[in-house]
Parts: sequence; structure tokens; C-alpha cells
Amino acid sequence: VWQCPCGGPFDLTFRPCPPLNLTGRPYTLWRYAEALPVSPEHRVTFDEGFTPLTPALMPAAADRKILLKQDHLFPTGSFKDRGAALLLSHAHELGVRSLLEDSSGNAGAAVAAYAARAGIACDVYVPESASPAKKAQIAAFGATVHAVPGPREAAADAARKAAGNTFFASHVWNPWFIHGTKTAAYEIWEQLGRKAPGTILAPTGNGTLLLGLHLGFRELVAGGLCGRMPVLIAVQTEAASGLARMWAEHLQSPPETPAASTIAEGIAVRRPARAVQIVEAVRSTSGRFLVVGEEDIRPAYHEACQAGWYIEPTSAVALAALPQLTPDLPDPVVIPLTGHGLKYTAD
Amino acid sequence: VWQCPCGGPFDLTFRPCPPLNLTGRPYTLWRYAEALPVSPEHRVTFDEGFTPLTPALMPAAADRKILLKQDHLFPTGSFKDRGAALLLSHAHELGVRSLLEDSSGNAGAAVAAYAARAGIACDVYVPESASPAKKAQIAAFGATVHAVPGPREAAADAARKAAGNTFFASHVWNPWFIHGTKTAAYEIWEQLGRKAPGTILAPTGNGTLLLGLHLGFRELVAGGLCGRMPVLIAVQTEAASGLARMWAEHLQSPPETPAASTIAEGIAVRRPARAVQIVEAVRSTSGRFLVVGEEDIRPAYHEACQAGWYIEPTSAVALAALPQLTPDLPDPVVIPLTGHGLKYTAD
Repeated sequence: VWQCPCGGPFDLTFRPCPPLNLTGRPYTLWRYAEALPVSPEHRVTFDEGFTPLTPALMPAAADRKILLKQDHLFPTGSFKDRGAALLLSHAHELGVRSLLEDSSGNAGAAVAAYAARAGIACDVYVPESASPAKKAQIAAFGATVHAVPGPREAAADAARKAAGNTFFASHVWNPWFIHGTKTAAYEIWEQLGRKAPGTILAPTGNGTLLLGLHLGFRELVAGGLCGRMPVLIAVQTEAASGLARMWAEHLQSPPETPAASTIAEGIAVRRPARAVQIVEAVRSTSGRFLVVGEEDIRPAYHEACQAGWYIEPTSAVALAALPQLTPDLPDPVVIPLTGHGLKYTAD
Repeated sequence: VWQCPCGGPFDLTFRPCPPLNLTGRPYTLWRYAEALPVSPEHRVTFDEGFTPLTPALMPAAADRKILLKQDHLFPTGSFKDRGAALLLSHAHELGVRSLLEDSSGNAGAAVAAYAARAGIACDVYVPESASPAKKAQIAAFGATVHAVPGPREAAADAARKAAGNTFFASHVWNPWFIHGTKTAAYEIWEQLGRKAPGTILAPTGNGTLLLGLHLGFRELVAGGLCGRMPVLIAVQTEAASGLARMWAEHLQSPPETPAASTIAEGIAVRRPARAVQIVEAVRSTSGRFLVVGEEDIRPAYHEACQAGWYIEPTSAVALAALPQLTPDLPDPVVIPLTGHGLKYTAD
């Protein structure tokens, strides 16, 4: 069972014991053990996490204190490893022998890598248009790649159809994945001296990053470890800006929009399953949605590379939104770098 | 001046104050500040280093305690960032405005990225045959890529010719680079509870990794921080095994061999400038040279990927040598993963 009879996604009622004394623990995402809903003996791990939080030192960042969270340095080259580590640990705990997933590429690679580490068979449904490097990476881990013609949603539909017979390791539907991505919040909090940043800009498609950040900081605030929430800003591309319109026009779901191509393929999602949650999360932090055009993303991508940051264009979406930051948004501004530039080089 | 009048490379007479109390320092390679010959205010850095040291959990590693040092997780996707961080910090300290480098690809990408971070103009000479992903990566950082026809040595010759007029940021000739790669030794030592591993297997071409490991452990032993040296095993491919023959046949330099193609392009070096040093380093630790064929590297590469380790084939060279490990070589065995699998996907 991966979906509520109401049609919506499940969440966990898990309440973490917040970790107070982190001294002597390894510098991985597992240092927040009390906040992670899997038993230590079932961890599926490459000792990942605690990625650096580093000043951007880029022209576009000159006026503000901008820190980049280097989540492109995870083993498979994207922040999705956070979620996959927790999701596969949970699958391992359940004794799962085979699973499937749908992805535009990064989550598929992450789930395939951790499935390989756990010795669990894996099928991944990707849009036929996903980058060759991403498809090759998933196949290298020994997973079976199903390239589905049509938009991103067609791959999701194909996976859901197949999910009747096997474990659906969906990074969107499975709540353990979000409990993995939330570790970014714990790390940022610790790296800033046990404080939330003023503002976080997150590229947003299915929202697994933004929801993870929201969940993590919410737990830290609820546990008395953090004084306040950061302002969460979700950044979308014009090509897939349904959440931004939902927010601006007070809609109950993303409006129907035609499929449009974008260089930011990681967030080319038109019907995110957790749409209502995402809008609510942004609203609850007094945040907002920002939209950038293709013509903004390319220069931001090149500027990042020429400052030494080798990222995939999806990561540049948040950088492209920097000129839209108003003075009321507090510093420091944290921008997670979601995927490695090498993922894009192949195209 | 980048070369001794005798024709050989320079080394530094720098003697580190060994760090004893590392508590509270950031988990980057800069935590060993006293061992690094650059002033803190000139650091050129992405907060890199302290990569995980993780059990391999692979069939080929079943009989031994094999730990993988995940140096493929550096910002540009290879361990060369260690050297580039130190080399560019040194160049920044000197006030260098432009520099050049020659590389089969990984060192070029590393130097180009750190040059971009420092705002220093950069020219990189690569063999025309270097992988498209590596060339694209160097160009993305804003460096000028010179693709030189012929074997790896032709690119080196072209760079040396151009080095008369500008700063030669060579990862082979410049000793600061080796003082960067030595940080792998400090990290392994600390991660093993302030001990050397029994054995280290290093893919070896120009030897910057092996010489860095040797220098780092030598400093730790000289400083009284480590009881003994690890046994250093240099692994070469048949296609470029001059050092192995030099060692086995007691030659003064690598024998002339015809250029042969190899999947392990990162170590396709036939005339390493530091050949004598490399052989001496291996000998002084009672180590040896191992040679693997192309037919050994491919299965080792695929086995690694199917266990979840996404590495470039050059990294698989050391894994391919595992069956040649004799029982006299002490555990734990550390194998540095030198480059990311995404670098290879594009080909």
C-alpha cells in the first residue's frame, strides 16, 4: 500500500527525540540518529551526508550573504541520496527483495545505487527524454531502466501501474524519502551554529527537497533546538510552474498546463502528488514562490560554472532567482546545490 | 622556474608542525593546517576534503577488510581537487594572474575549477583523446582547452613549451600539488583512529596520489603521530606499465614502450616525471607494483557499479588487482576511489 484511499500520499506520525549531544558522532547524515525512523542495524549507507555549506563568492551573490549547500557531492551526484538512504534502509528492514521507482533521473539513480548496496533488485521508469548520462548511470547499478515515451507524468503512470505487484520505492509517495531529505535541514542548522538560516531557496518540482527542509526545521523547532523557521522560497521554471500559480491564484490543485521543455529537467513536474503540502509548507513560513524563465537559467548556470561551481542546470534555477530576492528576506540565504554538473555534461 | 636545472622536479623542504589537537576544526582537508604550506588568508577552497572511508561490501573484497576512500566525491569529481586546492592557494599567495596546466582531464578540471574560484585565468592542454565529458567540464569553468593530438606526452610537451611565459600549474612538477594530495593520508590516519592502514592500493600513472600518500604518512611518522608506514602498492595497467617494469627490472627510468590505448585513461602515462621518486616510495614501504590487463579492469568496474560504487574505470584498476593481494599484505586494505563514474558516462 503506497497511497491513501483518499488518493493522497501517506506521512509518518514518527516523532523524533531531538539529538542534543552530537559530539563524537561521524560526520554523516546518520549523526541525527534519533531523528531517523530506521533501526541502525538496517542502515543502507555509503557514509553519506554532512555536505559543505560554503560562501558562493559569485557576482550575482555580491549583495547578500549567500551560502551554497553542496548536495551535488553525494555518491550518485544529487541530494536524492538523502532520501534513498532512508527509503532503502526502510525497505531493507521490511525484507523487501525487489522494488520499483519512477524518476526524471536523479532519484532513479539514487534508488538504484542504494538498492545495489542493499542487494535488492530494482526497476526504474524514466521519461524517454531523460538525459543519456542519467539513464546510463541507473543501468550501471544493475537496475532495469524502462524509458517511457511522453512527459514526466507518463513515467509516473507506468510506475504506478506496475506498483500493484511490487514495493513502490517512490521518492514522491514514500514518506521515508522525505525523512531522508530532511537531514539537509539538520546539517544546515548545525553548520550555522544551531540556528536556522534567514531564507532558503529551493528548486521545486515534486517538492521532496522543500518538504524535507520544512519537516526538518519543523522538528528542530518543535524539539526546542531551533528558535524559528527559515523563510522557504520555492523556485520553479516557467515551463513547470503549476505550484507557483496554485499559490498565487489560491487554487486547490495545479492548473492544467501544456507540457513545455526546460533545461531544468529535474523539476519538470506538472502534477506534483504533494502539491497541497508544498504550498502549505511555503505559506507557513511566510515564504513565496518565484518563477524563472529559460532565458534566466542558462546565464545563471554559466555564471555558477565560471565561479567554479559545477552543477546541473536544475540547481541553477535557484541562483537565477537571486535578482528577485527582496530586501525583506533575511540573510543568510542558503541555496542547496541539488545535482552535479557531470550529470549534464553528457548532453 | 618549474624544473631543476638537472631536469628533475622540485620538492619543498617544508617541515610541518604536526597537529595534535584537531577538536573543533571543520571537517575539510584544511583541518591539518599546520601541515599545509600556504597561509590561511590565501586559501582557495570549496570546503573540500574529509571524504568518507567506507567498507567496500563487494564480492571481490569478501576475504579481506577492504575500505574505500571516496575521493571521487570532491567538487570536480576527482582526488585532484586536493592538489589543486593547495596549488591554487599557493598561486593566489604569489599574486599569479594566469596559469597553465597539462592533464589527461581530471587534474585539468581541478585546476580550472580552483582557478575560477580564485579569479585566475587558466589554459589547459589535454590529449585530443581525453573524454568529451572531461573536456567539456574544463571549458565550463571558463578555462581555455587546448586539445593536443597524439599520446598523453604530446599534451605535456605542448604545455612545457608554453610554460616559458606563464605560471606552470603542473600537477606533476609543482610540489604544492603533492602537498595537497598528501591530505588523503592525514584523513585516512584520523579515520582509522590515528593509525596507518596495513596496505594501500593506488592506481598509478604520474604518481601524484601515491607520492602524496607516501609524503603524508612519512610526515605523520616523523612527527611521532603514527607508529609505522602502510605498505604502498602501485597498480598500473598493462597499457602503461613502465614504472612496474622499472621496479621489477631495476631500471633507472621507465623503458620505452609503444603507446597503447586503455580504458584507464587517468593513468595512461608512459614517462612519469617523478618515476624515480615513485619507485623509491614504493620500495621504502616494502611495497610492490601490480599490473592489470584491460580484461581485468572492465569486470572490476562493473562489479563496483553493481555494488553501488559509481566510479570511473581508472579507479577500478586498484579493485582489479585485489585477486593479486598475497596474504602477507596486512589488513585493513585502503583503496582510494580516484574519479567519479559520471566522468565516464558521457563516452
